[in-house]
This record gives sequence, structure tokens and C-alpha cells, in this order.
Amino acid sequence: MTNGSALFDPLSGVDRVSARLDDAAWIRALLAVEVALAHAAAAHGLVPGADAARVEQAAAGLDVDPVALGGAAVEGGNPVIPLVRLLRAAAGPAGGAVHPGATSQDVLDTALVLLVRSAADVVLDDLGAAAEAAAGLAAAHRDTSMIARTLGQQALPTTFGVIAAGWCAGLDRARRQLDAVVRGLPVQFGGAAGTLAASYPHGPAVADALAERLGLARQGVPWHTERTRIGELAGALGVAAGACAKPAADVVALAATELGEVGEDAPGDSSSMPHKRNPIAAITARACARRAPGLVGTLLAAMEHEHQRAAGPWHAEWETLTDLLRVTGGAAARLRVCLAGLRVHPEAMARNLALTAAGPGRHHAGDLVDRILAERASR
Amino acid sequence: MTNGSALFDPLSGVDRVSARLDDAAWIRALLAVEVALAHAAAAHGLVPGADAARVEQAAAGLDVDPVALGGAAVEGGNPVIPLVRLLRAAAGPAGGAVHPGATSQDVLDTALVLLVRSAADVVLDDLGAAAEAAAGLAAAHRDTSMIARTLGQQALPTTFGVIAAGWCAGLDRARRQLDAVVRGLPVQFGGAAGTLAASYPHGPAVADALAERLGLARQGVPWHTERTRIGELAGALGVAAGACAKPAADVVALAATELGEVGEDAPGDSSSMPHKRNPIAAITARACARRAPGLVGTLLAAMEHEHQRAAGPWHAEWETLTDLLRVTGGAAARLRVCLAGLRVHPEAMARNLALTAAGPGRHHAGDLVDRILAERASR
Amino acid sequence: MTNGSALFDPLSGVDRVSARLDDAAWIRALLAVEVALAHAAAAHGLVPGADAARVEQAAAGLDVDPVALGGAAVEGGNPVIPLVRLLRAAAGPAGGAVHPGATSQDVLDTALVLLVRSAADVVLDDLGAAAEAAAGLAAAHRDTSMIARTLGQQALPTTFGVIAAGWCAGLDRARRQLDAVVRGLPVQFGGAAGTLAASYPHGPAVADALAERLGLARQGVPWHTERTRIGELAGALGVAAGACAKPAADVVALAATELGEVGEDAPGDSSSMPHKRNPIAAITARACARRAPGLVGTLLAAMEHEHQRAAGPWHAEWETLTDLLRVTGGAAARLRVCLAGLRVHPEAMARNLALTAAGPGRHHAGDLVDRILAERASR
Amino acid sequence: MTNGSALFDPLSGVDRVSARLDDAAWIRALLAVEVALAHAAAAHGLVPGADAARVEQAAAGLDVDPVALGGAAVEGGNPVIPLVRLLRAAAGPAGGAVHPGATSQDVLDTALVLLVRSAADVVLDDLGAAAEAAAGLAAAHRDTSMIARTLGQQALPTTFGVIAAGWCAGLDRARRQLDAVVRGLPVQFGGAAGTLAASYPHGPAVADALAERLGLARQGVPWHTERTRIGELAGALGVAAGACAKPAADVVALAATELGEVGEDAPGDSSSMPHKRNPIAAITARACARRAPGLVGTLLAAMEHEHQRAAGPWHAEWETLTDLLRVTGGAAARLRVCLAGLRVHPEAMARNLALTAAGPGRHHAGDLVDRILAERASR
Repeated sequence: MTNGSALFDPLSGVDRVSARLDDAAWIRALLAVEVALAHAAAAHGLVPGADAARVEQAAAGLDVDPVALGGAAVEGGNPVIPLVRLLRAAAGPAGGAVHPGATSQDVLDTALVLLVRSAADVVLDDLGAAAEAAAGLAAAHRDTSMIARTLGQQALPTTFGVIAAGWCAGLDRARRQLDAVVRGLPVQFGGAAGTLAASYPHGPAVADALAERLGLARQGVPWHTERTRIGELAGALGVAAGACAKPAADVVALAATELGEVGEDAPGDSSSMPHKRNPIAAITARACARRAPGLVGTLLAAMEHEHQRAAGPWHAEWETLTDLLRVTGGAAARLRVCLAGLRVHPEAMARNLALTAAGPGRHHAGDLVDRILAERASR
Repeated sequence: MTNGSALFDPLSGVDRVSARLDDAAWIRALLAVEVALAHAAAAHGLVPGADAARVEQAAAGLDVDPVALGGAAVEGGNPVIPLVRLLRAAAGPAGGAVHPGATSQDVLDTALVLLVRSAADVVLDDLGAAAEAAAGLAAAHRDTSMIARTLGQQALPTTFGVIAAGWCAGLDRARRQLDAVVRGLPVQFGGAAGTLAASYPHGPAVADALAERLGLARQGVPWHTERTRIGELAGALGVAAGACAKPAADVVALAATELGEVGEDAPGDSSSMPHKRNPIAAITARACARRAPGLVGTLLAAMEHEHQRAAGPWHAEWETLTDLLRVTGGAAARLRVCLAGLRVHPEAMARNLALTAAGPGRHHAGDLVDRILAERASR
Repeated sequence: MTNGSALFDPLSGVDRVSARLDDAAWIRALLAVEVALAHAAAAHGLVPGADAARVEQAAAGLDVDPVALGGAAVEGGNPVIPLVRLLRAAAGPAGGAVHPGATSQDVLDTALVLLVRSAADVVLDDLGAAAEAAAGLAAAHRDTSMIARTLGQQALPTTFGVIAAGWCAGLDRARRQLDAVVRGLPVQFGGAAGTLAASYPHGPAVADALAERLGLARQGVPWHTERTRIGELAGALGVAAGACAKPAADVVALAATELGEVGEDAPGDSSSMPHKRNPIAAITARACARRAPGLVGTLLAAMEHEHQRAAGPWHAEWETLTDLLRVTGGAAARLRVCLAGLRVHPEAMARNLALTAAGPGRHHAGDLVDRILAERASR
Repeated sequence: MTNGSALFDPLSGVDRVSARLDDAAWIRALLAVEVALAHAAAAHGLVPGADAARVEQAAAGLDVDPVALGGAAVEGGNPVIPLVRLLRAAAGPAGGAVHPGATSQDVLDTALVLLVRSAADVVLDDLGAAAEAAAGLAAAHRDTSMIARTLGQQALPTTFGVIAAGWCAGLDRARRQLDAVVRGLPVQFGGAAGTLAASYPHGPAVADALAERLGLARQGVPWHTERTRIGELAGALGVAAGACAKPAADVVALAATELGEVGEDAPGDSSSMPHKRNPIAAITARACARRAPGLVGTLLAAMEHEHQRAAGPWHAEWETLTDLLRVTGGAAARLRVCLAGLRVHPEAMARNLALTAAGPGRHHAGDLVDRILAERASR
């Protein structure tokens, strides 16, 4: 659901991503694709260059009312059809240069890729900052002894540095994969039947020019019903959410009153219970992360695009994907807040360690921290 | 994501449900619970009756800015905490009558139930109208012969009435179950630890008075971490979405150019392809329905509410549940449009039937239609 | 995957359910349906009664090799087709009385209902025993004070009785719903096109006779592509798994070394760490429960049965449903073991309570326990 | 559920994968890890080399009864604990060289990686063969004109070659990603607390030696609770299933009686309906593919591994992952059968094309085929 909630987005950490995925952002992206397409077509002689320039001007001057556009989108089942009408009208005699050789899905898919890149920048930034905070904790607590817990029970000594380094490793790895998938997302340009017939014989060249103008990857061939890229993106976002869930769960567990080994710097309190120190950033990060797997499943199930445009699976992708970006972004944003301000309590760690363990003992903990931080520094 | 999209909600059929689930609706519901609670507490002597009346006045006069409230909600992790502060300030000397014996979860859960009932009314209305339209088709085409298709292949004769009656049966059944689950949703009132300690010994009576004032079911005992009701609701919504997906898929299939047995009365067209008759209501109904199962899975997975307030699973429920209401409502609304205007083409049915079948033959088809319609009339 | 694992089923608590869902159970159920159908058809004159008796004898004497049958099932896509061939051959001159008026889906769906009822008996038994154990704990610890924890932090006092009573309430409720759904599952009988054409005009009567012979509910009308019942069953199983996950999560949390408030009577130990007391029954119950939501989602997504026999969604139901029965059964079985032997440590509860709370104070805890136990006794 | 079903595995195409994931395969893999670990530890002086050799002999001579081992696994919650006891007993005086520096999770995770590699070889083989068959169809039908269909409606001309080339592109891409993820899966070696304490200071060297012996990737650092790799594997399998679903859905649609553009070479028939040509390989491929997304969601949700060994999420991974390998493998295997024997009917394509289209027209279809096949040849 595209425009987010003033009430819930801030506490879910979703607001920064939401702002890049609202109706206005969609309209901007759709228009950006149409403008770039007019220029790309002009570059290969499909439409006059002057007309493409007029299309750009018309788009710049267009004040699209999302409510009106949304209402007009019902009939054809997507907002591109009425937007093209608006743009053609605005372009006047250059209207013939609007939407050359394209079909609605070309524009909608490419605009979605633009939105994904824009929103993913926020997600990647928050994942990176969360990883950085974890790395800082790992370095600072390389040798801070604590008890490792397995299956909920105290096991043997470890250090908090190892645990934070593990968080960092997971976040870094998930970030890299997500970044690679997002960077590889191409334009979509196939025309009505996916054969580039209406731009023959310039279709592939127009597609590549479109990619260059929009700063996106080239498509090779149209992928209107070959949705492995959407599936890969879904998977990478799901993994990123999972990589946030792990440290969030650890913080919630370690902040429990009886353990008290960490705490957030701005914990939620309670007027009736002044002793409470709710690790609310970790809690909301975890809540966001838990919303990701179901959305990933929806996107993977929607890969079954029958024929040359799917009657339902395609439409199911749009908001599922933006919702998945939101919840993954929320998990990363809230985890970043959590880790950046995490208070570590070595004395509580020592106290708990004394319950069952003879002593810290010799172990590779510090080496493991060094390895992870060195690997991170080398990239 | 609470406030919906002007751009996508209309084509997804989600707009009518969305309007009942936006930030303003949330704030109204939260205040309604607080007001009802003040009165319920007053009825049992926990707060002065005059103060409860002042709380009601204060709430009526309160102009809550969702952006400010959302911002203030971050610290404690939910919007109830700052809303109570606002309401207490507005109530002045009666501020002590705000939120008596309650915890945030009591108010948020009960408000969510209010929103569910409100939004479900729309969903139930659309499910009912879609079923009614299917019943009309079944009656009108009780004896309209066509070929049944199994595994995509022509099989033996049936009638379109049987098929439409089957749609009707599924929609009716799903509607009844959803209605029953929604009607059974109770208030939530347990206090900070779920023990009703702060309202002792009047807690159960206050809870029941709260239920009566809000027109909700009684709770029996607090269910703050006993989430079977949320799971049942999720399941019933998922089943309703599935019951919409079946006729939507059939319409898409039967409307295929080569079959041409049905069509929508306002199909999407294409400027470049004037022969196209896209059954866009069915297509978007199906798209909405496909988004439901993943959300159901998220809510079922979130039933694991540890201790006396879950650190994440609870927070994950809120928007997942409202999103599930939206997509189920969208599926029902779009299917209603599809079926209410469905054009049936008996001559195409006869033509296709002739491909493999000798003739309509004797069968129970009409009887089956009569049975389903009679069962429906008897309720 | 039908036949389970000797290696993993016992530790997942899945073995008792698995035994009722293996290949042999499937073959028995398929044959039971065919035999009952022959008798039901005979009762209404479709086949000679003596032939139906011979079909029963033939089925009783049939030694079906699952490997051979599975191999022969590939061609047609389900095991009923070759099984009917085998049974006809075995019935000799009475072979014409095999499979009267039926299609493969009639037999497979009805057999699946038989398996569901059989397996659900185990699940319901374990859910009931787990609830009973929770009720026992609630009664025994009605007044055992402990700290309630919200968002992982100590909050205010409660009693262990309230917590166990909450477990009981959830398990009872989930059990009742599952029982109701399972009891309502009907036979399936529609013939090749779902019109009962081949048994005209006796189809409905044969269907009802089949239901009576098999002890199943009547179908009203065929439901071969109206899958709300499967969706409801999936939802009820998912809710049951969630109702098990809650107490399992609590036990894992309360058994943590630092809390030490409960423990299992046969905890897992470790040769290298003799102090460990892993609450392995709770852990494996939780693991099983976590596998349910995804399977529920798959079944809900598969409700989209196009035309008169779905090309994929139907086939996707079979093993997903039996897997869902298994994991839900495993969660219930392991939770039963966990709760039946749960050791409660009031002194640890008192020690932890002293960390933040002034004292147990007055609260409704005991009343809440009494309410839940009284409601349970009244059913 | 590990051991598969004789009744359903062949028709689901799951049998070849299942055979590599049964109880016997698990036991072999677990023993292989223990043997390799003994040698790796010996190579770094942790245990005598002669003892490692005796451990290998003991393992080779061990006849492990899965039923007994499964029963003994209940107590500790995994089969490694009793297997180590068996192996130590069998190794006699060399028993001290069994399981050096390891914890159960090290052995189980590494064995799971071995099983994944073994099972993935089958999946990759079937994906590759399905892609090869699609490439063959694309080449053969580079210029076979047919109508493209969008939203179920006839649109504009394309060629069957383009469609088959799109299938090929998706399958190739999914195969490459899966292959890359599988090749990168490392050994797991961390010891009881994940600090390699018990093998200090040789832990990292032992881990690398273990990797070399088993032919697996090095771990860098232990990943016992850093589960991004499992999430990536889940995502890649889900994408592969989706890449199979697309062509399967197309074949089902194109094989519909009224379209009749393709057919399988061994379609399922029906004794009562001799005209039926059910494309049963495509149908069962699609059914398998539809079971994947829910399992992916389960694995992503299970990434939340709290502390240093997760109490439930870890256990939930084992069979979910093997089930996901099975259904993905089934989808690929059945699709391979479908495509390898696909019959294409150009005359039906021409007949349907004539319904709405003026003629094949000029388009890039052939070029797109060439591009995809050239890209494929270049790898």
C-alpha cells in the first residue's frame, strides 16, 4: 500500500523508504521513463528529436493529480494508459513522440526498477550503517568476556566482540548481495508482444539507449514474463531482513532484565513502571523483519507469468515489492538506531558468566573478530 | 502500510476498505476505546462519572495531528502512549480518568478490533454482492450447456449455471465463516501484566462494560498473548481471498479469445489493439487474492507471543492485518464488479462444446444449481 | 513427503501422525473409498449388489505394491487410475462395479479426507493432552507468584497459574476449531465433470450413501474446485500450531539459565557441558510449529482451482496438507511431553520477582485461572 | 519429511532427489563429516593420525540402524549426539579422536551442506536439461509464427521460438545463480560456543582442512547463527522453482483443447474420455513449483537464530530445506520431461493467429531468439 502511514511508519523505521515509494514518486518515475524513451527513440530516428524535447517539456510542466490518475487507471488496469493520454495531450503536436514502440508494462516495469533503485539506496545505507555500528561494537568489545548461550542455556565463554562481529558479517554479506541484485536490474522494453515489433529494426538499440539515459542496466532481451530478476530481488531483500532479525533478537534477549548485558540508549519507558527499559528499536526492527518472508513468498509465487503478459501475477508484484522494500528498510533503519546507540554492560556479562563458567579460558574469539573486521576492511 | 495509494487502490478495489483503515480511522478508534474505557471504569466506581464525561468531551475536541502523534510514538513503540498524554492534558483535572487500569496493548488491540469490524463490513458486503451476482448467473444459466474442462482439456458437458453456482457456494461459505469470526472478536482488557491488577476487583466487570459500550464481544479473559483469534481471522480472510480467486481465474480463462465464453461489461481495451477485451476486474481481483496467503502466513507465524507482551510479533500484526483486510477486500470488490456485469455467450459455449462432445446429455447440472440456490435462500 | 523419516520423525514428535499418512495408509484409504462406492452404487441400483461384495473381497485380497503403483501413477498424474485398473482386474467379472460414476478426484479427495480424519485424531489427542497438562499446571500454581515480563523486561507480578491457564485457553480453543473443521469434512463425489452425469439420477443419493458408509459428512454438492474446506482446514491447523508455539516459546524463555523458573523433566544434556538443561521438547515443538505457516500459505494459494479440475493447484494440495498435519501434530506431541513433565521452580520465580517488584500485590490472577478452568470444565 | 513416498515421488518427479536425501544419505553424510574431521584434526596434531585412521575404519564398519538412531536422537534433539556415541564405541581405544573440538551443529550443518550439494547436482542437471530442451525448441521454431497473448487475450504476432527462448533464458539464469550459491556453501566448524575454543589455536586450520577433505568451501568464520547462506540458498531454489513454473504454465495454457498449439508426447489419457490429452508433466511440474514459495518463507523466517544456537529456528531448517530441494527438483525434472518431448503444432498456431491478426508482420522475434541462444553458447 503505497503511501505509508504517518502514524506507524516512523516507529517502524519505514518513513525514509516510504517517501521514495509514494504516489508522487511513482508518477515522477513513470514520466521519467516516458521522457527517456522519447529521447531514446529519437536517437534512433523513430521520432523527431525536437518532438522528444517537447515531450520532455510537457512532462516537466505536467501537474498530475494522483487521485484523478488513479481513477482513470481502473479501466485499463494500470496507471500508464491514462498517463500516456495526459502526456500526449500536453505534448500537443509532438504527442506522436510519446510512448514510441512501447507497451504499458515496459513503462511500469522500468519505473518500478527506478523506484527500487531509489528505495534500495536507503535500505543499503541503513544496512551499511548498522554493519558499521556492529563492527564498532566488535572492535570495542573484542575481549569483553561473556557467556555463550545455546538453546537458551548458558554454554561456554565467548566475547561480546565475537557476537557483534557475527552480526556485522551477516549484515555485510546481505548488503553486498542486495546491492549486486539491485545494480543488475535492467530496463524493460519489448512492446506489445515482447517482440520489439513496433520499433523494428531499432528496438534493441532503443532499449540500450533507454538504459543509458536512466542509468540502468541493459536488458539483453525483454523480461516481461521472465521474472527471475524479481525473484532474486525478493530473495535478497528477504535475506537482508533476516540478517537484521538476528542482531535484533539478540539485543532483545540480552537486554532482558535478568540478563541486562546490553541496553538501548533511548529505551522505551513506562509511566507506571519506571524500571522498564524496553529495547524498542530492536523490537520494531524484529517486527519489520518478520513481515518480509510472507512477501517474498508472494513474489516468488507470482513468477508464474503465463503467456506474454500475466493476468494477475504481474499486478500482484507492484505493491508487494514496494511493501517488501519498506519492511526491509524499516528493519535496517531501526537496527541501525539500536546498534549505533547500544550500551554494553561488561559487568553484567561478568556476573552472568560467573553463574556456570569457570572462567573465560583461551579461545579464538579475538581472532575471529579480527578476521571479520579485516575481511570487511579489505572490500 | 496504512494510508493506501490514490494511484493503485482504485484499480485494486482497495479504496473503500482503505478509507476505513487510514491514520484518521486509527486515531478515532483509539480515542473511542479510551472514552469507552473511562465510562466503563466510571460505571464501576474506578473513576468519577463526571470525569469520564469530561474525558469524552476532551476526546471530541481533540484535533490529533497524525504526523506529530506518529513521531511521538517512536519512543515507546506505539501510538497509545503519546495519545494518552494528549488526552490527559486535554482533560485537565479529569486527566486521572484517562486510561484507567489499562495498558497500551489493551487500547491498541481493542481499537484494532474496531477497525477490523468496520473494514470487514465492507469486505462482507462485497463478498455478499459477488455471491449474489454469481447466484443470479447460476439461475439465469441453469441450463446453458457448455463443456467442462479438466486439467485444461475439454472433458464432458456441464452448464454454466453449475459453474456459477459453485462460485456462489464458495463465496457464501467464506463469507459466513468470516462473519462469524469477526462477530466473535472481543475487547482486550488486562492491564500492564494481563492480571487486571490495577482495576481490582472490578476488572472483569469493567472489561464487560467496555465490550457493551463498544458493541464488541466479551473477552472472558485477557488474550494479549493468546492470539488464536488473530490466527482465525487471518485464516478466514485467506479463505475469502481464495474463494474470490476461483471465479476470477475462471473468468480470465473463459474470456480468453479462443474460448470467448464470457466477457466483462467494461473490459480494458488498448489503443493499438482494438480487438482486445481484457477482463480487468477479474485480473485485478486475482492479483489481490494472490497477495493474501503470504500475509496469512505472517500472522500465523506471529502467534508466538512470548511472555506477557511479545517483543516484535505483536507489532508485526498491526499493519499485516490491515493489509490483509485490504487485499481481501480488493479481491471481493473487484470480483463483485466482474460478476455483476458479466456477459455470458451461450453461442460460444455451444461452439466450443461441439469440438469434442456429442451433446449436452442428461446430467444433474440443473439439480445442483437448484440445491445451491435453495441452500442459500434458506439462510 | 509421505513416508517420514526414522531419523527425524521421533525427535520432531511426528512419528505417530506419520504412521497414519504413509503410502500404506494412502492405499488402504483409496481402496476403502472404492469399496464403499461400489456398495453405495449398489444400494441405488447402479451396480449389482453381488458385484459390490466381490469388489470388497477383491480389495481385501489385493496386495498393492506402492512402488509399482507409484510408477504406474506417473502417466495419468495420480495413483487412482492404476489402482482402479488393479482392482478391476482383481474383481474379474465384477470389475464393472469398480469406480461407478466416479472420477479420480472423487476417490483421491475422499481418501484424503479419510486420512485427515485419522491423522487429526492424533493431533487432537495431543492438543487435548497438552491442554490438560497446562490446566494441571494452572491449578497447581494458581497462586505461585512470579514476575510478568513485557517486551522482554520485568513488568509487574502475576502468577504462573495465569500463564499456564492462558496456554490452556489457547490450546483448547484451537483444538475445538480444528475438531469442528475436521468433523465437517465431507465425501467428494461429482464424476468426470462434477455434474454427477454418470450416475444420473442417483448421484446425490449415492454420494450420501458413500458418506454414511465412510462415516463422513455429506457433501451437499460436489466441491472438486470449491476449496474453502481445504482452506479452513489449513487455517485451523495453522492456528493449532501457533497455539503450541506460544507455550513452547515461554518454556524456552523461562528455562533460560538466568531465569530458571521452569525446566523439563528430561532435558537434553551435553557430555562436555554437564550443567546444560536444554528444554528439548519445547524446542522441537517450536521448530515444528514454525514450519506450519508457510504450508498454510501454500494451501490457501492453491485454492485457485481453475475450470473443473485444476492443473497443478489440486496436485499441490496432497502432500502439503499431509505435511501440515505432520508438523502440527509434531508441535502438539512435543508440547504435550514438555508440559506433562514440566518442573516449576517457585523459589526461582520468587528470586526473580524480587529484582524489581515490591511484592505480589493484589490481583485477579487467581480469578482468571478459575475462569479458564471453569470454562474448560463446562464443555 | 525425509524418506519420500513411493506413491507420490515418481509422479512429482521427486524420486531422484529424494534418493539423495533419505535417512541413509543423512547417516552417510554425518559419518563422512566425522571421519573428515578426525583426519583434519590429526593433520594439525589434535589427535593421533593413527587414531583418525581407526575412526575411519570404525565408521566404514558401522551399520547404523536409522530407527534406533532416530529413537536415541530424541533426548538431545539431534542425531549427532547418539551417532558420536556409536562411533566412539566402535573406535574403541581411538574413540578420543572422534568429534574433536566439535559440537553437534558443526557436524549437522556440514552434513546438510554435503546433502545439499549432492541433491543440487540432480536439480542442476534437470534445470540444465530443461533449458537445453527449451533452447532446442527455440532454434527449431525460430520463425514459427503464433499469436502473443496478453492478459489472456490475443495481442499481436510473435514466434514460438521467442517464447521458448524466454523459457530458456529464465532456466539458465536460475540455474547459474543456484549453482553459484551451492558452490559457495562452506563447512561449519565452531565448537560448542562458536569460538573454536576446544581446538585452540588450530581451529581455523582444522576448519580449512575439513573443507579441503570434503571438497567444500572454506568458512572464513563460523556461521552457526549467521544464516545468510541458508537464506540465499532458499531464495535461489525458490527462483529456480519459479523459472520452471513459467514454461509449465505456458504449456498447460497452450495445450488447452481450444488452443492446441502444443502437446506432450506422453499425455495422460482417460478411459472414459479418449480425446483427452492432459499435459501431465507440465501439470505436475507446476504443482511442485507452487510448493516452493511457502518453504522459502519458512527458511527466511528461521534466519532469526538467537544467541549462539537457536532454540527452534535451527531445527526448523533441516527438513524444510530438504523438502525445498525436493519440490524444486521435482519441478525441474517434470519440466525436463515436458519440454524434451514437447510436440509443437504450427498449423494450430497459424489457425489461432488468423483469428485476430492480419499476419505475422516484421518483428525482432528471430533476433531475440538468436541473442538468447548466442548468450547461452558463450557461457
